[in-house]
Amino acid sequence: MLIVMKPDATPAQLETVCAHVRELGLIPHRIRGETWTINVFGVGRSAPTERLAALPGVSACEKNGEPPTLVRRQQRPQGTTLMVRDEPIGGGRFTLIAGPCAVESREQVMRTAECVSREGVRFFRGGAYKPRTSPYAFQGLGDEGLRLLDEVKSRFDLRIVTEVKDVETLPAVVQVADVLQLGARNMHNYSLVEAVGKVGKPVLLKRGISATLNEWLLAAEYLLAGGNAQVVLCERGIRTFETMTRNTLDLAGAVLTKQLTHLPVIVDPSHGAGLASVVPPLVLASLAAGLDGAMVEVHPAPDQALSDGPQAVDFPAFADLAAKLRNMRRSTELP
Amino acid sequence: MLIVMKPDATPAQLETVCAHVRELGLIPHRIRGETWTINVFGVGRSAPTERLAALPGVSACEKNGEPPTLVRRQQRPQGTTLMVRDEPIGGGRFTLIAGPCAVESREQVMRTAECVSREGVRFFRGGAYKPRTSPYAFQGLGDEGLRLLDEVKSRFDLRIVTEVKDVETLPAVVQVADVLQLGARNMHNYSLVEAVGKVGKPVLLKRGISATLNEWLLAAEYLLAGGNAQVVLCERGIRTFETMTRNTLDLAGAVLTKQLTHLPVIVDPSHGAGLASVVPPLVLASLAAGLDGAMVEVHPAPDQALSDGPQAVDFPAFADLAAKLRNMRRSTELP
Amino acid sequence: MLIVMKPDATPAQLETVCAHVRELGLIPHRIRGETWTINVFGVGRSAPTERLAALPGVSACEKNGEPPTLVRRQQRPQGTTLMVRDEPIGGGRFTLIAGPCAVESREQVMRTAECVSREGVRFFRGGAYKPRTSPYAFQGLGDEGLRLLDEVKSRFDLRIVTEVKDVETLPAVVQVADVLQLGARNMHNYSLVEAVGKVGKPVLLKRGISATLNEWLLAAEYLLAGGNAQVVLCERGIRTFETMTRNTLDLAGAVLTKQLTHLPVIVDPSHGAGLASVVPPLVLASLAAGLDGAMVEVHPAPDQALSDGPQAVDFPAFADLAAKLRNMRRSTELP
Amino acid sequence: MLIVMKPDATPAQLETVCAHVRELGLIPHRIRGETWTINVFGVGRSAPTERLAALPGVSACEKNGEPPTLVRRQQRPQGTTLMVRDEPIGGGRFTLIAGPCAVESREQVMRTAECVSREGVRFFRGGAYKPRTSPYAFQGLGDEGLRLLDEVKSRFDLRIVTEVKDVETLPAVVQVADVLQLGARNMHNYSLVEAVGKVGKPVLLKRGISATLNEWLLAAEYLLAGGNAQVVLCERGIRTFETMTRNTLDLAGAVLTKQLTHLPVIVDPSHGAGLASVVPPLVLASLAAGLDGAMVEVHPAPDQALSDGPQAVDFPAFADLAAKLRNMRRSTELP
Repeated sequence: MLIVMKPDATPAQLETVCAHVRELGLIPHRIRGETWTINVFGVGRSAPTERLAALPGVSACEKNGEPPTLVRRQQRPQGTTLMVRDEPIGGGRFTLIAGPCAVESREQVMRTAECVSREGVRFFRGGAYKPRTSPYAFQGLGDEGLRLLDEVKSRFDLRIVTEVKDVETLPAVVQVADVLQLGARNMHNYSLVEAVGKVGKPVLLKRGISATLNEWLLAAEYLLAGGNAQVVLCERGIRTFETMTRNTLDLAGAVLTKQLTHLPVIVDPSHGAGLASVVPPLVLASLAAGLDGAMVEVHPAPDQALSDGPQAVDFPAFADLAAKLRNMRRSTELP
Repeated sequence: MLIVMKPDATPAQLETVCAHVRELGLIPHRIRGETWTINVFGVGRSAPTERLAALPGVSACEKNGEPPTLVRRQQRPQGTTLMVRDEPIGGGRFTLIAGPCAVESREQVMRTAECVSREGVRFFRGGAYKPRTSPYAFQGLGDEGLRLLDEVKSRFDLRIVTEVKDVETLPAVVQVADVLQLGARNMHNYSLVEAVGKVGKPVLLKRGISATLNEWLLAAEYLLAGGNAQVVLCERGIRTFETMTRNTLDLAGAVLTKQLTHLPVIVDPSHGAGLASVVPPLVLASLAAGLDGAMVEVHPAPDQALSDGPQAVDFPAFADLAAKLRNMRRSTELP
Repeated sequence: MLIVMKPDATPAQLETVCAHVRELGLIPHRIRGETWTINVFGVGRSAPTERLAALPGVSACEKNGEPPTLVRRQQRPQGTTLMVRDEPIGGGRFTLIAGPCAVESREQVMRTAECVSREGVRFFRGGAYKPRTSPYAFQGLGDEGLRLLDEVKSRFDLRIVTEVKDVETLPAVVQVADVLQLGARNMHNYSLVEAVGKVGKPVLLKRGISATLNEWLLAAEYLLAGGNAQVVLCERGIRTFETMTRNTLDLAGAVLTKQLTHLPVIVDPSHGAGLASVVPPLVLASLAAGLDGAMVEVHPAPDQALSDGPQAVDFPAFADLAAKLRNMRRSTELP
Repeated sequence: MLIVMKPDATPAQLETVCAHVRELGLIPHRIRGETWTINVFGVGRSAPTERLAALPGVSACEKNGEPPTLVRRQQRPQGTTLMVRDEPIGGGRFTLIAGPCAVESREQVMRTAECVSREGVRFFRGGAYKPRTSPYAFQGLGDEGLRLLDEVKSRFDLRIVTEVKDVETLPAVVQVADVLQLGARNMHNYSLVEAVGKVGKPVLLKRGISATLNEWLLAAEYLLAGGNAQVVLCERGIRTFETMTRNTLDLAGAVLTKQLTHLPVIVDPSHGAGLASVVPPLVLASLAAGLDGAMVEVHPAPDQALSDGPQAVDFPAFADLAAKLRNMRRSTELP
C-alpha cells in the first residue's frame, strides 16, 4: 500500500500517519519525492485504506502500491531536464544520439564518431558489452570496446551512451559512460536497475520488448525511489505479430508517456523498425510529435556490421537526416 | 502460382506461356497490370515453376501466388494519385480527412462540417452504418445518416468518406459517398472487398486490427485485380498487449508500406491511439514521416458522443492542430 | 444501456420499466432470454442508470450495453446441448469433427470420409467456399464442392460442417450443411453473422484471430439475440508474436469461455498450431480439459493439399489419435 | 558462426578445422556436447562457410550461429531425465511441482507443504526472493524465506524449487534449493543464466513473457554451452492482447518444444492463466498432451495471499486435482 501525502503536509502529520501504520502492525517506509510518500509493507487484502486516507495531510491511499508515483508528471509539471556535461536532454531540445550498435574496431568507431560529430551530434552510442540472444553471437569487445569509447569521448567531445549488461561489469562501464543505458532485456532486471540507480549517473532506460507503459514507468520508479532522478526513457519498439518490421515502434505510447511523466522521452527507431530505410522518417516524426530525442544507429558499412546491420544508416543517409532535422527545427513551431 | 511477365513481353509470348500451362492440366488466368501476370489455378505443391520461369518473356514464377503483385511500387514507381472531385489524395499532398466517428444528429454533423471546412479541410468522414462489437451498441443512423452526409456534401463542398458495412447497404452508400471506406473489421471480408471494388469509386482500405502488412497489401490486391486502382491505404492501429492506448498505431509499418506500394498511405490516429490528447502529435508525426494524410475524429462535445468519444478532438483542439499543420507544411522541406 | 430483469420479474414490472425509459426520451428494445433484457437506445454518457436500477423487478443496469447477456452461463447453468440430426454437441460428450481443409476432388473427400467414419466420427468438415488472404490462392470448388459434400452426407451418414463465406452463397450452403461454420475472418462480419443466425440451423462460430474472449461472446450474442441459440464456439488460435506455430491455440481461453457461457466450446488445433505433429496431443489435451470437442483436418496426402497441407494429419495418424481418444474416454473420469 | 562436427569426428579432424579457422584470422572456441561444436568469433558476413563445411569431420556450418545446437533432440533422441535427489523429472513421468507463489509465513508454508506432500507431491515451489514489477510491492521474505524452505525440505522430504533473482543472492539460494528457478523476467538476463549454469544444480528455466520458442531454446543453450545439461523448460504463458486471462498459456508451443529438444518440458498454468478455476483443467491437459509435468500454485487462503492470490488453488481444489491426475495416470495409455 502507498500513502501519498499532500504537498503541504507537515512533518507532524507525516509522523502521525506513520504512527497509525505501526499501530496496525504494519511497517511504514518513507519515500522523499516532491511530496512524501509512505510505502506500507505487510498489508493484506483487507487493509484499512479509507481510515488512513482520512488522516490529516494525506492526499491518497493506494492499495497494492502498483501505480508509479515519483515519475508522475504532477510531481514536476515543468518536466525534468538532464544535464550531461553541459548538454541538456529534455527541456524543449531534441537530442540526437548516434553511433554504431556495437563497437567493433578502432577504425569503425573513429570514422563514425567523426561523421556524427561533424553533423552536430553531441551524444555517441555504442555497445562494448552486448547481451545477445544466442550464446554463439558476437558479445561485444568488452573492455577493449570501453577503451575505444573513452578515446571517442576525448577526441570528439562526445558524451558516451553505452549499455550496462550486469552488476559485474558495471564499475568498468561507469568509468567511461556519461549516460548508462539499461537495455530492453534488462528493464525487468530490477537488481541491475537498482544497482545502476545507485551510481548517480544519468540513466537511459529502454522499454522492455513486451513491457506495458505502466511497467516501464514502474521500472523508472525503481530508479527514482532509489534516489536517482536523472532518467531518460527510450521507446524502442514492442513485440507484435508483425514480422516485416523487427518490432513495432510505439510512437503513440511514447507521446502518451511524455504526458504521464516529467522525465524526457526519446525513441530508438533503429531497433524499433529494424530497417534503415524507415529510420529517418521516424526520427523526423518523433521530432514533430514533440518527443525529446532519438537514438540512431550509424555504421560506415552496414552490410559488414557484426550486429544489427540492416537497421543501421550509412554516412550519407545520416548526413541527409541531420540536414532535414536542422531544417525542421529551424523553421517549424513544434507542438 | 503466379507467373509475372516481363514489361516487354510480347502477346505471342504471353500466349505461349498460357498454352504451356494448359498442357500441364492447369488453368491460366490473365491479370492486366502495368505488366501481365498469369494466375495459375489447380497447382499442387510439385508445380514445375522452374520450367515455366525459363520460358521467353517470363520475369518470375511464384509458387502459392502469395505476394501481392499489382500494388507493388515497381508497377508505378511514380506513385498513384487519386482524384476525388478535383481534389487529389497522394502525389505529395498531405490530405486531412476530418469529421465525427458516427453521424448522430443534424446539428452535430453541420457544426462539425462547418468547423473543419473553415480550417481548409476538403474531406469529411462520418459513419452512417456502424459495425459494432456488441449487438446492443449504437449501430448508426443508417439511411437518415446518409441523408445528413449528403446535405454536408452540398452545403460545404466536402467530399464524403463513409464506411460500407455490407453488400446489402452498398447501393445506398454509393449514392452519397465520394470515397467508400472499408473498415478494419471488413478488410478480411473478401466478398465485400470485391463488391466494393466493382463499384468504380475510390476506396479507403483500413488495415485489419491484426493484419500483417502483407495481408493488407493482398486485400488491396483484391481491389486492383478486380479493376479498381483508386485505392488509398489507411493504417489505424494494430492490436497488441498494450492497453493504455486503444490500439498501437504502426507508423513504421505505414512508412514501410509506402515504400512497398504505389498507393497513397494515410493514418487514423484517433482509432490508432484512442486518446484525444495523443492525436494531434501523431498527425504532425505522420506529415513529417512523409505519409499522404491523416484521418481525424472531431466532435462538438466528445464527452457526449454516442461512439468513441474519448478519441475525438473538440473544435478548439482541431483548429490548433490545423494551424500547426499549415505552419509545418509551409515552412518545412519534408522527406 | 442494458437493463437486465430479475428471473421472477412480472410483465407489469417489465412494462413499467419500459415506460420509464420512454419518458426519458429513450427507446426500449426487449430481448427474450431466460430472463428479459431491455436494450436502451439513444443513451448518452449521463444515463440515469442508478434510477432505473432501483425500479422493481430490475436485476442490473449496465451502461454501454457491452457485456454479453444471453450467452452467459447463468442463463442456462446446465449448459446447452445442440442436436444435429440425432447427434449431440455438448452435454458431456466429446465431439470429433474431421475432414479436409478444402474439398479438392471426389476421390479426396470420399477416401477421407471413409477413413474418419470408420473411426466412429459423426461430423465431417470440408470447405467448398474458402475465403483466402490472396486473390490468387485456391478459393475452393464452390458449388461442385457442395455437391461432393452432399454425397458424403448420404453415403457415410456424416453430418456436414462447412463454411459460409458470404450472404450471396448462403442459400446454396444451407442446402447441404448440417452445421454452418462462421470462420475466423467473418466473426466480426456482423451482417453475415446476423444473416446466418436467421437461417435456423446450428452454427459453429470460430473465434476471430485477434478477438478477445469478450468480443467472441458478443458475436455469439448477435446470434442468440437474433433468435438462434444453436451455437457452438470454436477456439482456433490467436495471432501472437510466435511464428514457429501458425497461431497460438488459447486452450486456457477456451476453458474459461466454457465457464462463462452455456454454449459448447470446442477447439481447432489444426489451424491453432498449424503443424500436424502437434495436433493429436492438443486434441487429447482438450478432452482432458473438459472441452466439448475438437475439429481436425485430415487429408489422404497432406503434402499434396491445395490449402493448409502442413497442418493436416494423414490417415494412419488420425487412426492412432482416434484410438487414443477412445481409450481415454473409456477409462478416465474426466473433469 | 557455428561449426558442428560429426558424432564420429576424430580429435585430429577437430584440430584441423580449428587450424583452418585460425588461418582465416578468426578465433575457434570449442564446445563439448554429445558432438563437438566450434563457435567461431570474429566472423563477418562474408564468412567462408562452404569451404569450412567441406572439411573432413564437419557435419554442418551455420552462419550467425543463431540456431540452438546442444539442446536439439537429435543430440539425445531418447530425451534427458533429470535426477533430483532420487526423483526424476522427464523420462515418461509426469511431475507435479506445488506450493505457494511466495513464502509468506511459517504457518503458510508448513500447512501447504503438508497438504501437497499428503497428495504425493515430491517437489515444493515457493519464492523467497521475488522480482516485482513495482518497487513498492512485497519483495519476498528473503533469507527468512529460505530458512523456512529449508525446514520444509527436511520435515516433508520435499525437493525445493525456488527462484534466483540475482547473482548477489545466488549463493544463499544454492544452499537450500534442489532446483534453481530462472524466472520469466530473467530468461533474457544472460549474465545470471550463465552464473546459474555454473553452479552445477538442476535448473528450471521459464520462458520469457514474450520470448519466441527459439529464444527460449537459446537461453537453455547458454546453460548447456556452459556445461550444465540438467535443465527443465517451463512454459508459463506469453503476453498477448487477451486480458481476461493473465497471460496466454502456449500449450502447443510446449508440445512443439518437446519435439524439438531432448530436455523435459513442463507448464505453469497458474501464471499462464492467472485464474484458479482454469488451472486444474490445464494441468490435466498437459498430462494428456504428453508433457513432463506442471507447476501449480497452492495457498491455504488464496484471498489473503501477498502475491498472485487469484491464481492459487486452495487445498480442497488441489486434492481434487491430485485425485484426477492419479486416476488419469493409472488408467490411460498416454501419448
